[in-house]
Amino acid sequence: MLSPAYLAVAAALLLALGPALPAFAGRPIIAGKPAPSEAAATARWLTAQNTWGFLSTISSDLSGAPFGNVVSYSDGVPGESHGIPYFYLTTLDPTARDALEDQRTSFTLSEFPLGTCGKIDPENPTCAKLTLTGKLKLVDLQSSEADLAKSALFTKHPEMKDWPKNHHFQILKLEIENIFLIDWFGGPKPISPTEYLEYGKNQALLKLS
Amino acid sequence: MLSPAYLAVAAALLLALGPALPAFAGRPIIAGKPAPSEAAATARWLTAQNTWGFLSTISSDLSGAPFGNVVSYSDGVPGESHGIPYFYLTTLDPTARDALEDQRTSFTLSEFPLGTCGKIDPENPTCAKLTLTGKLKLVDLQSSEADLAKSALFTKHPEMKDWPKNHHFQILKLEIENIFLIDWFGGPKPISPTEYLEYGKNQALLKLS
Repeated sequence: MLSPAYLAVAAALLLALGPALPAFAGRPIIAGKPAPSEAAATARWLTAQNTWGFLSTISSDLSGAPFGNVVSYSDGVPGESHGIPYFYLTTLDPTARDALEDQRTSFTLSEFPLGTCGKIDPENPTCAKLTLTGKLKLVDLQSSEADLAKSALFTKHPEMKDWPKNHHFQILKLEIENIFLIDWFGGPKPISPTEYLEYGKNQALLKLS
Repeated sequence: MLSPAYLAVAAALLLALGPALPAFAGRPIIAGKPAPSEAAATARWLTAQNTWGFLSTISSDLSGAPFGNVVSYSDGVPGESHGIPYFYLTTLDPTARDALEDQRTSFTLSEFPLGTCGKIDPENPTCAKLTLTGKLKLVDLQSSEADLAKSALFTKHPEMKDWPKNHHFQILKLEIENIFLIDWFGGPKPISPTEYLEYGKNQALLKLS
């Protein structure tokens, strides 16, 4: 595994070598963000740090076209990130309606709104992007998981607990089947859902959120 | 049509009336952002102000699941917004590959990264969200449209012009067929693609970008 110090030197070297190498190659290593070689850690960091992202569903209103929507989420109370994104959605909105008809969903996050990409373009591969693909499922409101999810959501999104009761908000979660992470040059990093979900189980995750 | 002054009074009144009305109802009118009653203006403002968003495609790698990705875009050089989002993508990335197999695509923007939502939650309906759905198509690199698109992209994303030639970046655009805008309470606003694209043709669009 490459150390952050090695990568910093490599990045500086790539920059110094100039135009013969990809012009992408100038991003310094960011304090707090896991090193690019640490794919599962980077994916979990993106999920823990962000509070909103984009859900893509198969649109029932638009004859099966893909439909992206802006959503808030939480994968744990602050300081206790578990990696599973929970959502608070109403079927007044098409995303929840779509998922109840066809559960296939992807959830996408960008590092850019965290501010750590600086002046690097949001599409530059060193400004990390994560897409979790799987099935969007209802969480039984009577379950202990729903209590945990509510606590995770309402601590990061305090206004949610006061959202109108007659909108019938429900808790949904993404059951992750595939992970697509871009955090450096060279294409997506292979991460299995198990590797992602197990990351940090034996260590404090406080540093992530 | 409701004036901004009317809406400000209405919003204050809703807030004052308290919990019997939706708890969503406290957002003040933001200077610079079109009034919630001005749906086409708000949609064009979101497209002109943002520089990145999320493209959702039908994934060829994941057996037709929806796939969201972070992309940069431009709908015109600064101060001259035209509403059509242009992208600079490579088939090294799944989004462009997907679109070449199945053009059905949606492009989603949030007001949240602009900073104008303040402390309002990104999922709150008064923090605007726009989804443009249609077909993602290649622009002929020899056309005058490609020259305009390059100029639009490279002025807002200066590093793009130096991105590696051997990645074979191509210009794509979204041909808009359906518009979904949430910018206030009461569900999505009906806007036709013509109404969106024609907006401001007879007035200076400088205020939008």
